[in-house]
Amino acid sequence: MEQIFKRTHMCGVLNENNIDEQVVINGWIQKRRNLGGLIFCDVRDKTGIVQVVFNDQIPQELFEKADRLRSEYVVGIKGTVKERESKNPDLPTGSIEIFADDLMIYSAADTPPIYIKDDDNVDDNLRLKYRYLDLRKHQMQQNLTFRHNLTKLARDYFDSQGFTEVETPMLIKSTPEGARDYLVPSRVNPGAFYALPQSPQMFKQLLMVAGTDRYMQIVKCFRDEDLRADRQPEFTQIDLEMSFVDQDDVIAVQEGFLKKVFKDLMNIELDTPFPRIPYDEAMERYGSDKPDTRFGFELKKLNDLVTSCDFKVFTDALAAGGDVRGICIDGGAASYTRKKIDKLTEAVKSYGAKGMVWIKVEDDKISSSVNKFFSPEALREIADVFDAKAGDLILIVSDKKQVVFDSLGFLRRHIAGELGLLDDNKYQLLWVVDFPLFEYDEETGEYHAKHHPFTSPNPEDLEFLESDPGRVKAQAYDIVLNGVELGGGSIRIHDRALQERMFGVLGLSPQEIDEKFGFLVEAFKYGAPPHGGLAYGLDRLVMLLTHQSSIREVIAFPKNQAAQCMVSEAPGCVDQEQLDELGIAVTAAKEEEAHQ
Amino acid sequence: MEQIFKRTHMCGVLNENNIDEQVVINGWIQKRRNLGGLIFCDVRDKTGIVQVVFNDQIPQELFEKADRLRSEYVVGIKGTVKERESKNPDLPTGSIEIFADDLMIYSAADTPPIYIKDDDNVDDNLRLKYRYLDLRKHQMQQNLTFRHNLTKLARDYFDSQGFTEVETPMLIKSTPEGARDYLVPSRVNPGAFYALPQSPQMFKQLLMVAGTDRYMQIVKCFRDEDLRADRQPEFTQIDLEMSFVDQDDVIAVQEGFLKKVFKDLMNIELDTPFPRIPYDEAMERYGSDKPDTRFGFELKKLNDLVTSCDFKVFTDALAAGGDVRGICIDGGAASYTRKKIDKLTEAVKSYGAKGMVWIKVEDDKISSSVNKFFSPEALREIADVFDAKAGDLILIVSDKKQVVFDSLGFLRRHIAGELGLLDDNKYQLLWVVDFPLFEYDEETGEYHAKHHPFTSPNPEDLEFLESDPGRVKAQAYDIVLNGVELGGGSIRIHDRALQERMFGVLGLSPQEIDEKFGFLVEAFKYGAPPHGGLAYGLDRLVMLLTHQSSIREVIAFPKNQAAQCMVSEAPGCVDQEQLDELGIAVTAAKEEEAHQ
Repeated sequence: MEQIFKRTHMCGVLNENNIDEQVVINGWIQKRRNLGGLIFCDVRDKTGIVQVVFNDQIPQELFEKADRLRSEYVVGIKGTVKERESKNPDLPTGSIEIFADDLMIYSAADTPPIYIKDDDNVDDNLRLKYRYLDLRKHQMQQNLTFRHNLTKLARDYFDSQGFTEVETPMLIKSTPEGARDYLVPSRVNPGAFYALPQSPQMFKQLLMVAGTDRYMQIVKCFRDEDLRADRQPEFTQIDLEMSFVDQDDVIAVQEGFLKKVFKDLMNIELDTPFPRIPYDEAMERYGSDKPDTRFGFELKKLNDLVTSCDFKVFTDALAAGGDVRGICIDGGAASYTRKKIDKLTEAVKSYGAKGMVWIKVEDDKISSSVNKFFSPEALREIADVFDAKAGDLILIVSDKKQVVFDSLGFLRRHIAGELGLLDDNKYQLLWVVDFPLFEYDEETGEYHAKHHPFTSPNPEDLEFLESDPGRVKAQAYDIVLNGVELGGGSIRIHDRALQERMFGVLGLSPQEIDEKFGFLVEAFKYGAPPHGGLAYGLDRLVMLLTHQSSIREVIAFPKNQAAQCMVSEAPGCVDQEQLDELGIAVTAAKEEEAHQ
Repeated sequence: MEQIFKRTHMCGVLNENNIDEQVVINGWIQKRRNLGGLIFCDVRDKTGIVQVVFNDQIPQELFEKADRLRSEYVVGIKGTVKERESKNPDLPTGSIEIFADDLMIYSAADTPPIYIKDDDNVDDNLRLKYRYLDLRKHQMQQNLTFRHNLTKLARDYFDSQGFTEVETPMLIKSTPEGARDYLVPSRVNPGAFYALPQSPQMFKQLLMVAGTDRYMQIVKCFRDEDLRADRQPEFTQIDLEMSFVDQDDVIAVQEGFLKKVFKDLMNIELDTPFPRIPYDEAMERYGSDKPDTRFGFELKKLNDLVTSCDFKVFTDALAAGGDVRGICIDGGAASYTRKKIDKLTEAVKSYGAKGMVWIKVEDDKISSSVNKFFSPEALREIADVFDAKAGDLILIVSDKKQVVFDSLGFLRRHIAGELGLLDDNKYQLLWVVDFPLFEYDEETGEYHAKHHPFTSPNPEDLEFLESDPGRVKAQAYDIVLNGVELGGGSIRIHDRALQERMFGVLGLSPQEIDEKFGFLVEAFKYGAPPHGGLAYGLDRLVMLLTHQSSIREVIAFPKNQAAQCMVSEAPGCVDQEQLDELGIAVTAAKEEEAHQ
């Protein structure tokens, strides 16, 4: 007996060219209407929807079977494609319909708890609990397909460039720095733990030492971090490393990749090379190391102009070594009432700013929140720094340099969003380069590696490594799309003497070096090639290119904000026996709760 | 300053066609000889080795630099390709050499603790500790490359067949059956644990319910099992699932895949369709559900012949419901002395057999370990069952059916190995089909699912599901290559009523069903398509096709037999702080040891 109707076409591909063809489709009933002697069904698969008609020419039994169909029943249908009388121009298949002459019901379905339509504004946790229904939505299947096409393209491209995909281990050693590790207790080695990798960093460098030459991997990584922002406990990287290369080589390969992504998947021709902006310039001009250059509002430094003004907030900031900087919102004066400006002032406080000064340039006058302290001429002088014209709004923050950058960097992008200037269909790709090698910790007076301790300094800064670490730039680079970091990497140190100098600046003891990086340092003794690489955040990349609002929209089964899988109800309780075998016990105060 | 010599060629590709070309290579010094005025270096990269000559025409400084080179130094070399006077036909590059005119030493190297050559018989743990050196061996890089090519081909092929690669989660719920789970304590949900997936089984079925239609993933899976056999705690599957298919559809797609693997990667043309052998026949003929059909030695049943013989061992076995079966080793009589036969007898004991009977057919007589109990005519009658001729050796085991199958299945393959009949270059692919749906547990008198409880019964056996579960066959199939299972799968149950009958036979309570399979059963309520799939063990597949002896040879960084990563020394101790955050404590008695 026939168990399956063998499909001839996917639902969404049928059109005028198929008229009069005998076809077989398989799919889900999107909806069903019985108009007396005619039953209309919309049948859906991942490619789209097609209309099926059961009319009175078919056997009574078949008509009655069709009448039993309900939403989300799974069916096979044989029939003939016919031109539709009342065409639906909104549907790719809208000019045809299938006159059914056979029907197989594979599964009945209860009424689904969420509707299968893209704009269903259902609660997020409900969507995640019934993810297998949520994923039936056309947009969600499109997202999964786009992700598949992107990873396929990545593998094809890097393969063509001589990269070998190599799997690195998932059960590795926990390293006491970076983000928090997920731990895995070992049963065979009681009391010991594996960690899940935060990235394959050390293993990919080992592969270069091993002579693999060019490595790539699309790989799950894990960070046990707070999930406030749009983060997931497990996320995916496109991870790359190359031997015998400098920064230009790595960048050129990546530009080839991104150019192909945009061309093949979105039919957009990108110009290469992408602009490169040194870190310092990015901060000075955009207040951000991932500048969005789709719009202006560039930062200007006002220190010299206000150095001897009467406004104590400015002069105090300068005296403490800080900065006074501002941005000019072209034509923003009208859009920003006092009330809306107050909201902005409130918002910058989360970046550490204590306040914000505004200046509105009008046709005949210039007004400001600091009218009392500045003459109209002085305000005009400030406005001239921005080439401000009537109707413009200037916002100024004074504080420590980083606070000023963070606040203004936030403001320019936030306001651009409010003014509708963030054009989703404009793609501004750029490299941020020349990152500082170190971060200075004001509290401890120590230097930390900004990227990681294997990042190579710029050769021309080598002489300052010990004498002035703060001025040493790194051979590190981030790729930025529309103000979002897509990925980053660096040229690594492969020279043992330089590596030791680096550890010296970081103040690491031999024991610390051994604990944290022992096996990599050991490996470098036996001949390490010059090498460097990069990793992309795949989830974020797919999210941006599909114009989704969250990485959860491009992950099949994401965790919720409490790091739970709503489908399988993970994490869950485990048997005492399992814990005993692992030689661990639960001590958490909330254990009782968790068991309820 | 030039930091890197930009490579023009990989070392292994240079040949006569490059003569007189200026080339730049990068690589490792394999060896260096100073013959007075000439220094010869073998330079190695992943593609091979090329000879480089520094002669007395180059500046003194450069010559002295070359003289400082030692094994495993990393270098860049510029030079001119010249025809070699004394050609080395064993080396692909053996007819040329490079006359160097510039040298850059990227890294010096200490004397490596293991030699970089394929046949280096070094201790396994040392190889694993210095894996980055072990991987420099040509064979190891070839293994990684083959693995890359195979996964690339798999993705290309399944993409062309409409499969979407979808990532399923790594942090899932622990299910209290199957192999032992690796657990991951949750910090955000104290007292609760994730498990690492043993396979994406339930998620891939959910993807079918979600309408993904055809899913594939090359994915890490985890089993915390004993590692005696050639197993790894983490291993990789090529995982597949298809909607609206029957068994023939799944098998056809796989045959297309395997045909392409052999054609594209090994230039071997496989005939399709592959033979299909029902499980019962495989056991009867080969004593194994993964038969190696490269050689004969098929099992024959002797029950009828010996039913009233004087040999109590046979008649007792029959009386207890067991079997008497044997195999005939063509021309094996001479190869197997008493002593060697005793060894075989010893070996089958690990399969539960209490002994083994042998018969040697000679020109003029027939001898046997059971001469006392059988007349020469009776022995001849047995020999005739096998069409035995002079020089043949017959081996007979009597016991419970499974013991007989296991013992003889082992013997035929073991002896074929000893006799050199396991031809590595012969590839016998076949499907084993019609597996029993259930396994009967003699101790408890219960039936268990042989594959898993979602495996669909053969439609024609449905009527016996409750009345005679033992005779019900499954729509399950294994793909077998030369006696090794490469993968297996099944058509799944998608019908709720059938699923409930299945749970009934398995004696599962509603609570057990809910705990173990709750979310999948729930999902099936909302319209499940008919679906089925398969998973390959990637490590094993690559191992077989590269003729390696262990899956460790085809994994970049495998664990050792104590589940340790010798490179990174995982698993290791973690900080008390980390445990406190997770709300767990170590109770293992060996904790102290682990900390030492």
